[in-house]
Amino acid sequence: MVEQIPALLGGDRRVLARMITYVENDGEGKEALLRELHPYTGKAYVIGITGSPGAGKSSLTDRIITELRKGDYKVGVIAVDPTSPFTGGAILGDRIRMSDHYLDQSVFIRSMGTRGSLGGLSRATKEVIKVLDASGCDFIIVETVGVGQSELEIMTAADSTLVVLTPGAGDSIQAIKAGIMEIADIFVVNKSDLAGADRVVTEIEVMLDLGGYKKGDQSWRPPVAKTVSINGKGVDELVQKVKAHRQHLEKSGRLDQERQRRLKAEVSEIIEERIKEMIRQQLGRSGQWNDLLEEVVARKIDPYTVASQIIKEELWKRSTP
Amino acid sequence: MVEQIPALLGGDRRVLARMITYVENDGEGKEALLRELHPYTGKAYVIGITGSPGAGKSSLTDRIITELRKGDYKVGVIAVDPTSPFTGGAILGDRIRMSDHYLDQSVFIRSMGTRGSLGGLSRATKEVIKVLDASGCDFIIVETVGVGQSELEIMTAADSTLVVLTPGAGDSIQAIKAGIMEIADIFVVNKSDLAGADRVVTEIEVMLDLGGYKKGDQSWRPPVAKTVSINGKGVDELVQKVKAHRQHLEKSGRLDQERQRRLKAEVSEIIEERIKEMIRQQLGRSGQWNDLLEEVVARKIDPYTVASQIIKEELWKRSTP
Repeated sequence: MVEQIPALLGGDRRVLARMITYVENDGEGKEALLRELHPYTGKAYVIGITGSPGAGKSSLTDRIITELRKGDYKVGVIAVDPTSPFTGGAILGDRIRMSDHYLDQSVFIRSMGTRGSLGGLSRATKEVIKVLDASGCDFIIVETVGVGQSELEIMTAADSTLVVLTPGAGDSIQAIKAGIMEIADIFVVNKSDLAGADRVVTEIEVMLDLGGYKKGDQSWRPPVAKTVSINGKGVDELVQKVKAHRQHLEKSGRLDQERQRRLKAEVSEIIEERIKEMIRQQLGRSGQWNDLLEEVVARKIDPYTVASQIIKEELWKRSTP
Repeated sequence: MVEQIPALLGGDRRVLARMITYVENDGEGKEALLRELHPYTGKAYVIGITGSPGAGKSSLTDRIITELRKGDYKVGVIAVDPTSPFTGGAILGDRIRMSDHYLDQSVFIRSMGTRGSLGGLSRATKEVIKVLDASGCDFIIVETVGVGQSELEIMTAADSTLVVLTPGAGDSIQAIKAGIMEIADIFVVNKSDLAGADRVVTEIEVMLDLGGYKKGDQSWRPPVAKTVSINGKGVDELVQKVKAHRQHLEKSGRLDQERQRRLKAEVSEIIEERIKEMIRQQLGRSGQWNDLLEEVVARKIDPYTVASQIIKEELWKRSTP
């Protein structure tokens, strides 16, 4: 795969598709590939879109693509469905609605189901972002199905996070407000042609007034955009708000800070992953650890004491990862 | 808290409630407490209940409690809602439906929201299971809201996993079948008085025939129970099926095997968690790692190479956790 990097950088879409699949499949050469891609990353701006199911996120994404394409930007889209643990099928219907952009050579859309393990989807999403980034996308949109834990985790990869709400789901704001307050850079009230849209806007504003804004950046108060994704109304203003947020991040130096923080977290995750793998291999082997583990099973000793013992007496001495 | 263990073992419900809260709050003394509780665990039988939202899992749990209470068993219930990342509010309505057992001194019900971090809820649930186990529960029921990743992870703590489906949600089986096939020990078709119940049963049986049964235990074909949780119909047969599964696990030696596997996984998780914590502390400090990390940000070196370097040259030499 590494030898195909020049083709990727040159804009070859089939290589892009193949490379994403390769990364998703988590094969042996994945790390080597991501290693080689690293110098070409860090250019794309990542927009995260989350919110309750049925809020119209997919058609909103569709409209945002249209708007970004007016500026001739290259756009990558990752549609993530963590609620579908073993298949990516559920999201297919949504994808079809994006068919406006199906023939556009400057738009690349990819659906992702889960990776089997908790946390795996978030890592996989971040890796696919890297591939899209290296391929020259100016914007990468990461859209999730709901607002569960995995989604919140995935949204940590976004430079700007859009939280989509709708009127008529009166209790939804109350139900998820705490989580939303913490991750939203911009609130979107979609289906704003429906009755009650202004009330939702007011509720968000009041919540921002009352609860304070909890995300690290106190200097940015998340604006509220009103959109109608089925006809595109308000999407231009929404994209302006995203660009305003980007400008804010760039001017204040927060964009660099955040991206540095993310890269450091990534290094930390890689270290953790490797040590984890090593522990698994060691624990899997038959050997003197087994006796200790048997004693845990027999309730003669507790798991915490054994863990300490293994770290101190075994792992640290014997291993050179 | 440790000094209150005798009261817990003696059946003091207020101490039980306090101890669960203590474990949930993840305070400093938690580990010491769990350490001391370990010898008293391993007796309760854990039943996991999962399935789509709206499948009637809460009222089914309610009925299963009633059924188990006929045998004078002590029952603990943990209702977990991973979709509610910052509050446990969403589940409250469900809990009220369980009020039949509110005054029963041999039934203890607890709701849990998430722990903030991905994977944290699963760990917290397992810890609360330990407290309930030590308190003398014969059965512990763990019920989740949906069938997302966190739920699948939580279900690894169950001895018998019940997957609840309903008729009328025709496509739901297809949509989640892969995940379900792998975790179900018993299928429950709830609301089986509705039209289409037999079709769902047939679909499950056909899927079992066609797809094979993927869970480790090839010698157990998951039976399908039909229930109507609003009037309790079929719940006695369902509980019989759970007991049959338990007998199967005990006779085949799988119950011990599985519980040993789980304890080993727990030790492994504790080791990972400790090393993770150590890495975080080390990476958080200013020092020579910062230079390396800056080079990652500047794209002079990739995260994987830095991770290897840190493990080899720094972490392994300098640390004695």
